[in-house]
Amino acid sequence: MPRTRSAPLATGPVGLSPGARAALLPASVEVSAGFWHIRREVNASTSIPQGPGLLESAGNLHNLRVAAGSEQGEYRGAFPFVDSDVYKWLEAASWQLAQSAPGEGGPETRRLAGEVERIISLVVQAQRSDGYLNTWFQVRHGGERYQDLRWGHELYCAGHLMQAAVAHHRATGGEELLDVARRFADHIDSVFGPPGSGKPIDGIDGHPEVETALVELYRETGERRYLDLAGYFVDRYGHGLLGGEAYCQDRVPVRSATNVEGHAVRQLYLLAGAADLAAETGDTELLAASERLWQAMTTTKTHITGGLGAHHDEEDFGDPFELPNERAYCETCAAIASIHWSWRMALLTGQARYSDLIERTLYNGFLAGVSLDGESWLYVNPLQVRDGHTDPGGDQSARRTRWFRCACCPPNVMRLLAGLEHYLSSTDGQGLQIHQYVTGRYSGDLDGGTAVAVSSRTDYPWHGAITLTVEATPADRPWTLSLRIPQWCREYRVRCGNRTYDQSDAPVKDGWLRLKRAWVPGDQVVLELGLEPRLTAADPRVDAVRGCVAIERGPLVYCLEQVDHPGGGLDDIVIDPVRPLAVKDRPDLLGGVTVVVAAGRRRQLPATGWWPYRSPDAATDPVPPAGEPVELTAIPYYAWANRQDGSMRVWLPTF
Amino acid sequence: MPRTRSAPLATGPVGLSPGARAALLPASVEVSAGFWHIRREVNASTSIPQGPGLLESAGNLHNLRVAAGSEQGEYRGAFPFVDSDVYKWLEAASWQLAQSAPGEGGPETRRLAGEVERIISLVVQAQRSDGYLNTWFQVRHGGERYQDLRWGHELYCAGHLMQAAVAHHRATGGEELLDVARRFADHIDSVFGPPGSGKPIDGIDGHPEVETALVELYRETGERRYLDLAGYFVDRYGHGLLGGEAYCQDRVPVRSATNVEGHAVRQLYLLAGAADLAAETGDTELLAASERLWQAMTTTKTHITGGLGAHHDEEDFGDPFELPNERAYCETCAAIASIHWSWRMALLTGQARYSDLIERTLYNGFLAGVSLDGESWLYVNPLQVRDGHTDPGGDQSARRTRWFRCACCPPNVMRLLAGLEHYLSSTDGQGLQIHQYVTGRYSGDLDGGTAVAVSSRTDYPWHGAITLTVEATPADRPWTLSLRIPQWCREYRVRCGNRTYDQSDAPVKDGWLRLKRAWVPGDQVVLELGLEPRLTAADPRVDAVRGCVAIERGPLVYCLEQVDHPGGGLDDIVIDPVRPLAVKDRPDLLGGVTVVVAAGRRRQLPATGWWPYRSPDAATDPVPPAGEPVELTAIPYYAWANRQDGSMRVWLPTF
Repeated sequence: MPRTRSAPLATGPVGLSPGARAALLPASVEVSAGFWHIRREVNASTSIPQGPGLLESAGNLHNLRVAAGSEQGEYRGAFPFVDSDVYKWLEAASWQLAQSAPGEGGPETRRLAGEVERIISLVVQAQRSDGYLNTWFQVRHGGERYQDLRWGHELYCAGHLMQAAVAHHRATGGEELLDVARRFADHIDSVFGPPGSGKPIDGIDGHPEVETALVELYRETGERRYLDLAGYFVDRYGHGLLGGEAYCQDRVPVRSATNVEGHAVRQLYLLAGAADLAAETGDTELLAASERLWQAMTTTKTHITGGLGAHHDEEDFGDPFELPNERAYCETCAAIASIHWSWRMALLTGQARYSDLIERTLYNGFLAGVSLDGESWLYVNPLQVRDGHTDPGGDQSARRTRWFRCACCPPNVMRLLAGLEHYLSSTDGQGLQIHQYVTGRYSGDLDGGTAVAVSSRTDYPWHGAITLTVEATPADRPWTLSLRIPQWCREYRVRCGNRTYDQSDAPVKDGWLRLKRAWVPGDQVVLELGLEPRLTAADPRVDAVRGCVAIERGPLVYCLEQVDHPGGGLDDIVIDPVRPLAVKDRPDLLGGVTVVVAAGRRRQLPATGWWPYRSPDAATDPVPPAGEPVELTAIPYYAWANRQDGSMRVWLPTF
Repeated sequence: MPRTRSAPLATGPVGLSPGARAALLPASVEVSAGFWHIRREVNASTSIPQGPGLLESAGNLHNLRVAAGSEQGEYRGAFPFVDSDVYKWLEAASWQLAQSAPGEGGPETRRLAGEVERIISLVVQAQRSDGYLNTWFQVRHGGERYQDLRWGHELYCAGHLMQAAVAHHRATGGEELLDVARRFADHIDSVFGPPGSGKPIDGIDGHPEVETALVELYRETGERRYLDLAGYFVDRYGHGLLGGEAYCQDRVPVRSATNVEGHAVRQLYLLAGAADLAAETGDTELLAASERLWQAMTTTKTHITGGLGAHHDEEDFGDPFELPNERAYCETCAAIASIHWSWRMALLTGQARYSDLIERTLYNGFLAGVSLDGESWLYVNPLQVRDGHTDPGGDQSARRTRWFRCACCPPNVMRLLAGLEHYLSSTDGQGLQIHQYVTGRYSGDLDGGTAVAVSSRTDYPWHGAITLTVEATPADRPWTLSLRIPQWCREYRVRCGNRTYDQSDAPVKDGWLRLKRAWVPGDQVVLELGLEPRLTAADPRVDAVRGCVAIERGPLVYCLEQVDHPGGGLDDIVIDPVRPLAVKDRPDLLGGVTVVVAAGRRRQLPATGWWPYRSPDAATDPVPPAGEPVELTAIPYYAWANRQDGSMRVWLPTF
């Protein structure tokens, strides 16, 4: 059960307050090399620095200047929520600035700090004297407020402003943006409240987000009203205030819902807020709802990549086990929101499965959203692109795009990558938990404030060995180093001092290998996770992939791309599931990847008539069909769509 | 090859002009009993009479009165094309009135004629003096015209007006609506034309429809300008006039397209227009394009029900072999448009396969669109509703709805059913072709005007025997009675005089059983089509149904409904494909149907964890899984969603 204890000053997202009921507290990690370090370097050197220019060309900064009265013109952008792109970029830049101590860092850091200050000053100037701030309504609608809660996104944008302000404050100590956020939060608190509260509006925003943000603002400021306001909002969903649509999370209250539904990002931000509230208030009903919905989501509505959202139409979750491939929506923002929610659940409960899903999502459904060079993006992340695909272009394209009309995803990727070190490790007062394996240094405090630290060297996920070295430890106090044994892992070995365990005898419970020792600096633990490539099938109710397998290796889901299979497309390819898989390190390919090689065939296609439905003898007979043998080369899913356009598939037919 | 000969005065849709190059001409059929007679009686007694009331409540008639200045008020309806609902109803009512000679028929016919006159007078009064007519632009936009060709639907509505006017003229001889249509067509012709024509606008409508309508108007009036205008419009698609979107058919010109794409109804109405043009102008390139696109559509983008359109988003065709079940869009209007196009292709080419598709579509993808009582409708026609389905309600609901916000489908169903007798038979000058089997009387003229007629008795599709009796024939001139042997039919027998043929020796070529005789009145031909129920599988590239079979019998596709399978849902059901199927006549059920009974099981589901993806041993092994035996009762797909809500599926897993 969650328990109460005091938290240190937060340095990253989810800065649990001293009174929070959570099993774990986020711990610090310095990521210094390896897979995620490379991705974060690209984020720091390319994606984030390009942000202000893109926000300028798209009109977001123009809108702020027009709202401030310092520039003339019309509102630019097709949607009412473009302010949030600015706030998400500010949050990303703040976490990036937090990598260096204030005033330190090289010229790039100083330039970034300058850009942040410049853009914060635009935000400051755009804010109304009573705290309100939304350029869509200020510029386009003559200042009319809260007239379209279903679609106006005012509180949604306010939420992203609060998160940016908290990040900036935690990263730099700067108060200016935090003051803007507080004034807006105070304004919202003066307007919104339950019937009988004397507040003018009993309402919620069509897009949840302000709830989790208000809890963070409470954590940063200690202002209890923000927590109460978040609680009010979370509980007002599902009562028809917005017309009762599932899309807006208004069909069923969170507390009584039995599965995730409606717009995936809305659902997941709302649940992140619910989990935050459960942590800060000890609301066990909300915690139980959040656990129940997470279980329902993972068992019935999650793609193998961790991607979420089955419908292009309304960006919705589908029905249970409705998990299409070519029309998987899997919005990049939904993957991010899932990580936000799961991380809160991991802290609340201490259970490893939440970090299992985070790992899967990070390496697959999330990371596919950004190109290897950090300059282009996917909004939707399908699991299949067919031969003969007609691409619609625009935001829903299966081709990477420089920026979107609805540009929610790119700065969302930036902020998660920039703050990623805060999602990797935790402390429970009795030791350190390693949730995700990186090269770097994990550190935290035991109860009483004693510092512990472990350095780590690994080439994960390409190789399975992780060498952990104790760097700081109390001399006389045993503590527990907990290593997450990933849910996908069938075979592993761990060497700790002169003991060696494997999957048959390791002290693993609920996904955690717990090593309790009186540690001495220099003590080594070597974990070797078996990375044999494997084939994976789905629950038989996932109709979309019946008779198919996916290739996986470690936390990575693999896919075929047409470019690696000259001489044809991919829709006539079958894999032979009984032939062994091989791996090949390809430092030359896609920034350096390990590919998986499998045996397949190009099937002989049925004679062409005009009707593709026929007697079932062949089609229900799963003997691998005849056809020319083909060597199948699978690349990690996250790296797809970085070469020439063409078909792609994750799930491979066996017949 | 199509050839030129003279056509009689048209009495139904597709009234080919005397100079048309078509292999066949539509012939007359009186449908007097049986399956389609029952459906048409419901259409005549319930659906069509309820139309004016529904058009009144939805505001369509109000809009006409406001446009005429006889009533005050705002435009009602969410879309710019609601006038077309009125026109489609007028067309339906006109074909219905054509069932009786003018001035004859009972009180219901007189009431219907009165309603038609009343509504025509609203249309007459709403028309501007220069011929323009569109209430959306007249009422809402202060009369601004052609400002939004992509979405305004002005020419689309004009097309439906023309079709209604032609139908009314053919049915009653009435000139009033035809005059409205001519004035509007003349106005359009004065505005739209190619660069250099001196016409102010070089443009097309975002929703094709006016093209096929203009050809019909040409046929009815002899005005060549209408045909030329249709040709101009058809060839201006695909050149970026609307921004180049596939949705609007503007990505690729018809003549160079290689597959159907974009919004399904738009694509199919455009192709009906292209086929009309090919018939009237002898344009062989357009004919070749239409044949090529039809072949591509049927082989790669058609659901087993004849349904078309794989995407909810934009109501689009998907990629080749992208044929989802739960998200099959299969708009009822797309099935209707497919029948329109295929019938034109059948007439142009004389090939039976076009009527094979028409049969499949009529009995399945089309007919599911209207409830058995004729009072409620489906806009989308999915092939699966999952256990735990969260229904969105509204137009895209999987529950039948009394009327839609976008009410294009109901009056479209009405007009096809009311004029259905014109899609069943043809003459080629040397004989009579029976495309679809009904109880009634088929008649037509041989070259030179000699009348031939055949009466027919059948309980098709429930029973396979069709008894045809020659009623009118020249005494001394042999002619050919051609019977379509359906593409689905494996075994049949035909008795003609004292000869009996079966599938081994019947004179069948290209789907036509051709019986050339010197007929005598009273001669009988008895065709028996084998109606053994069968299992059907799909091309292996249709990933959505790998490892599944569908149950079919005759032209009917079957489905399971949850209500017939108490004790659980349908998502855990598997069919045993090697056990025999049985049929059972159920006069008590769904207006009288034959059900198919199959052996199945409720599978033992995998133990619940939190992750539904696992080692593939079980899932790729197609041995029927263990589980409790269940008798599966399949009903015809067209009759689904006429009882209580619940899950449904057409494609049944075999493992």
